[in-house]
Amino acid sequence: MNKELRPGAWPDGKEQTQLVVWAPLANKLTLHPEGSTETTALQPAEQGYWTLTTNRLQAGSRYKLSVDDGQPFPDPASRYQPEGVHGPSQVVQLEGFNWQDHNWQNLPLEDYIIYELHTGTFSEEGNFAGIAAKLPYLKSLGINAIEIMPVAQFPGGRNWGYDGVFPYAVQNTYGGPEGLQQLVQACHDAGIAVILDVVYNHMGPEGNYLGIYGPYFTEKYKTPWGNALNFDDAYCDGVRDYFVENALMWFRDFHIDALRLDAVHAIKDFSAVHLLQQIKQATDVLMAETGRTHFLIVELDLNDTRFINPQEKGGYGMDAQWVDEFHHALRITAGGETTGYYSDFNGIEHLAKAYRDAYVYDGQYSPHRNKKFGIPALDNPGKQFIVFSQNHDQVGNRMLGERTSTLHSVELQKLLAAAVLFSPYLPMLFMGEEWSEPNPFLYFVSHTDAELAEAVRKGRKAEFAAFHAQGEAPDPVDANTFQQSKLQWQLLEKTPHKTMLAYYQGLIQLRKTHPVLRSTVRKGLSVAGDKERNCLVLFRTNGQDALVCLMNFSQQAQSFKLPGEQAQYQKIF
Amino acid sequence: MNKELRPGAWPDGKEQTQLVVWAPLANKLTLHPEGSTETTALQPAEQGYWTLTTNRLQAGSRYKLSVDDGQPFPDPASRYQPEGVHGPSQVVQLEGFNWQDHNWQNLPLEDYIIYELHTGTFSEEGNFAGIAAKLPYLKSLGINAIEIMPVAQFPGGRNWGYDGVFPYAVQNTYGGPEGLQQLVQACHDAGIAVILDVVYNHMGPEGNYLGIYGPYFTEKYKTPWGNALNFDDAYCDGVRDYFVENALMWFRDFHIDALRLDAVHAIKDFSAVHLLQQIKQATDVLMAETGRTHFLIVELDLNDTRFINPQEKGGYGMDAQWVDEFHHALRITAGGETTGYYSDFNGIEHLAKAYRDAYVYDGQYSPHRNKKFGIPALDNPGKQFIVFSQNHDQVGNRMLGERTSTLHSVELQKLLAAAVLFSPYLPMLFMGEEWSEPNPFLYFVSHTDAELAEAVRKGRKAEFAAFHAQGEAPDPVDANTFQQSKLQWQLLEKTPHKTMLAYYQGLIQLRKTHPVLRSTVRKGLSVAGDKERNCLVLFRTNGQDALVCLMNFSQQAQSFKLPGEQAQYQKIF
Repeated sequence: MNKELRPGAWPDGKEQTQLVVWAPLANKLTLHPEGSTETTALQPAEQGYWTLTTNRLQAGSRYKLSVDDGQPFPDPASRYQPEGVHGPSQVVQLEGFNWQDHNWQNLPLEDYIIYELHTGTFSEEGNFAGIAAKLPYLKSLGINAIEIMPVAQFPGGRNWGYDGVFPYAVQNTYGGPEGLQQLVQACHDAGIAVILDVVYNHMGPEGNYLGIYGPYFTEKYKTPWGNALNFDDAYCDGVRDYFVENALMWFRDFHIDALRLDAVHAIKDFSAVHLLQQIKQATDVLMAETGRTHFLIVELDLNDTRFINPQEKGGYGMDAQWVDEFHHALRITAGGETTGYYSDFNGIEHLAKAYRDAYVYDGQYSPHRNKKFGIPALDNPGKQFIVFSQNHDQVGNRMLGERTSTLHSVELQKLLAAAVLFSPYLPMLFMGEEWSEPNPFLYFVSHTDAELAEAVRKGRKAEFAAFHAQGEAPDPVDANTFQQSKLQWQLLEKTPHKTMLAYYQGLIQLRKTHPVLRSTVRKGLSVAGDKERNCLVLFRTNGQDALVCLMNFSQQAQSFKLPGEQAQYQKIF
Repeated sequence: MNKELRPGAWPDGKEQTQLVVWAPLANKLTLHPEGSTETTALQPAEQGYWTLTTNRLQAGSRYKLSVDDGQPFPDPASRYQPEGVHGPSQVVQLEGFNWQDHNWQNLPLEDYIIYELHTGTFSEEGNFAGIAAKLPYLKSLGINAIEIMPVAQFPGGRNWGYDGVFPYAVQNTYGGPEGLQQLVQACHDAGIAVILDVVYNHMGPEGNYLGIYGPYFTEKYKTPWGNALNFDDAYCDGVRDYFVENALMWFRDFHIDALRLDAVHAIKDFSAVHLLQQIKQATDVLMAETGRTHFLIVELDLNDTRFINPQEKGGYGMDAQWVDEFHHALRITAGGETTGYYSDFNGIEHLAKAYRDAYVYDGQYSPHRNKKFGIPALDNPGKQFIVFSQNHDQVGNRMLGERTSTLHSVELQKLLAAAVLFSPYLPMLFMGEEWSEPNPFLYFVSHTDAELAEAVRKGRKAEFAAFHAQGEAPDPVDANTFQQSKLQWQLLEKTPHKTMLAYYQGLIQLRKTHPVLRSTVRKGLSVAGDKERNCLVLFRTNGQDALVCLMNFSQQAQSFKLPGEQAQYQKIF
């Protein structure tokens, strides 16, 4: 898009600020600087944008905007909401940050070993500085990429991040935009890449003022969270550019290495150029300009390679996707519950298929979905698939938020970790799993709107009504629910947590150094599932070296016959 | 799909009929043969189907079905509704027809010269026999493919066809299934291919009993005609198979050469395999089995080559699509109104772009749509685009249904015809344009539901409220409105109709025989639009022969400077 019309407040570092707001149906758009009763009108520009170059705003100034003389509200492209979602927006000079990561180069995607974390509960401090303080620890663990759950401004101070309503503003309670810039700087200093989770499929329910400014939403499609964002209806260009520019902002102004785009199956877009493709094209242009590399990773629940195929093959060009199916098959194999979406998975056979084909459902009838589902992903390299034995959703969407630590034996936890790290896919850990953190990761919010808070509370109770035998769903609004979800770093000194950490360190080290394990080439992989004994034999070779991984998910010791001559094998782990 | 589960009644030609009905949520499905109070239960089979092999039905038997002991209704896959949409279904042995077209071979797509017709108003008889009687005339005109507007059973006897509610049943008042088979036979005898218009994006409002049998509809998407057909929600497999098998039925049992799929942009499907792709794959299998060739042509309002690109390029593999934009640009150039969707078109420059690029909007901002629209179609051959100077929609969606015959001079009508036939795209005529038929083609229905009829009547009036200066919108329910829309064959004897027909005959003959004009290769085409003089110079060459087409849309005589040496040119038309 026209660079002059990128939404937001752009201070020039001296005296003036250029304000750009998209409001295609407005007749009047007015700036309300904080602490002044004098307002200033913006001028209509092309494509539904309004602009104003003013010396009434500088970096640090706070302001609101009004449409057609209505009540003033924050800027939809606010870079900072120092007083939360309902307060004024603050001008920030993002490019003023003193970057020292000129020597940083993003890692090759196939080398990523990802660690998903939630800023509020990862550290005692619950902010970016708290993460930065733990970087030496993360480095010693061996991971080389952190994935930060969404940081776009949400209501209150406690939220997973999926209720964000200001995609351009970094959560004030986490440390705001400069706090995130400092964290990325520190990560790059430590040789760690940063993946940021962004939500382009819906807006949270509180503090969502977008509709006041323009047709950000459409009634054409329904999503689980209400009307869909308008990506292909009239006036969609401004909405599309709003998110495309948002993606570019993280790369350009925050040096984020990769985005994890939340639930892209809920981005309803029948345009000739899909929003994701447009983001990919814009990212390619930016990368050519800066010489830096950025990846686009999607959470995708469609088993449709169109999203991850290159554009020349008719795809949207995403670099990689999450594969929940590997998780589901793995957890069923480990003896987990078989209700809900787990009911589609039969354990060891589906786990074997996940190793072999990435997608478990690639055309078969899915009983849970009541339809045939997916297409084969045979030509996509392993580095396009991200796998895990738990993540924020799989833990937090349980009524009691239990991690595998409280569901499975230490030995089984170790097996789950190995199953992930020995796969030809990109492994991802969820914060604390490496020391078998016993605290849950619960669902929590801190809506300041009392009615909404009560609705969320009731909704959560209703969702788990069938599980009342297992206890009550913890109150998501209660600050204790958040507090209980924090990691207990002091456990690291104790057994069995210490031992588990050492195990993970060894496992990750092996993944990073073994010539077969470090590769995400899928060729040379074969797998045999033994349903009766609940065991799986994973064989991988790169033509030169070979490796057999014996996974015993049963409760008994099992003996295996190795392929070929036994004598040639050497136990490495 | 499993051939044993293809929906409908399948008489074995002897004593028994196999009945297959999809009703995945039913607990009981019951056959009600006409003239008997004794019912018979169907048996549940796999995938939500119910089956029954019975000697209570033979070819010619009439029946209804009831779900869970409710009121009996016709079969959703009825092959014939002899008493209309609310009456019983009748068993038909489609494969019993005595085909004599073994030597028929479909024409190459690039040779198609299409003639769109509406069965009810094309001939005085208003049925398939009426069309068959005119085949010698159509042959003498020079067209080689007729495109029949939808014939799926609709309420009453007067309808464009887009209110059909039994996709498998051929309209009783047109001659039913055997009437259509006889017409196709006669066409093939005459060397004419048959394209059938089918509607897979919605169902008509009256006699639509599908919802009683299963989740044919979804609330996920909205269409202009209410809830969308369920192509990607739970239980969609049965709905998808219902339409895929429908497409195959026309090819297999009616020897239809090509389908024209109505408004496929309204088929909302985010599955990994799009419905159209599934139809293409099934058609490929059928073609391999029978050795016959069938084309899939779509009406598409998205300017998205994904629909017409081959599957190996990530496309849906459709053979061709309608291009309304060529029509809009042409009509504006000819001096037509610039309201509504026409407002996006500027005349000669856009017409030049349509000749050059097929899509006028291939990424530009469209003021009428209030968004950027389309992608370039540079790599798609000309035979993938169907163009026209009028069609049933462009005529009939005008309040007074005027053809160009009553809007433009004879000379301009001739120019419009040449503009279409000299393009590198597949030309299509709308019935009667070749003799400048003055009768309108109006919007008409004959709903038997009085309330619905009144609603349509009011809706039509409201739609054209702004045009009251031009008169009243004719009453769509009035039989006279239908009657007024019939072609007047007697005019063919008179001037200027006779002259116009001779002109069209000459033009079509030239299109079919000139080495440059008969080609749909887009390479070698160049075009220059002269906005000031409202003229267009179209230059086409195949490397050997070359041709210049001078189009003067202005009211004055104009002189042209031909490219190269004037002397080398020879006037051919």
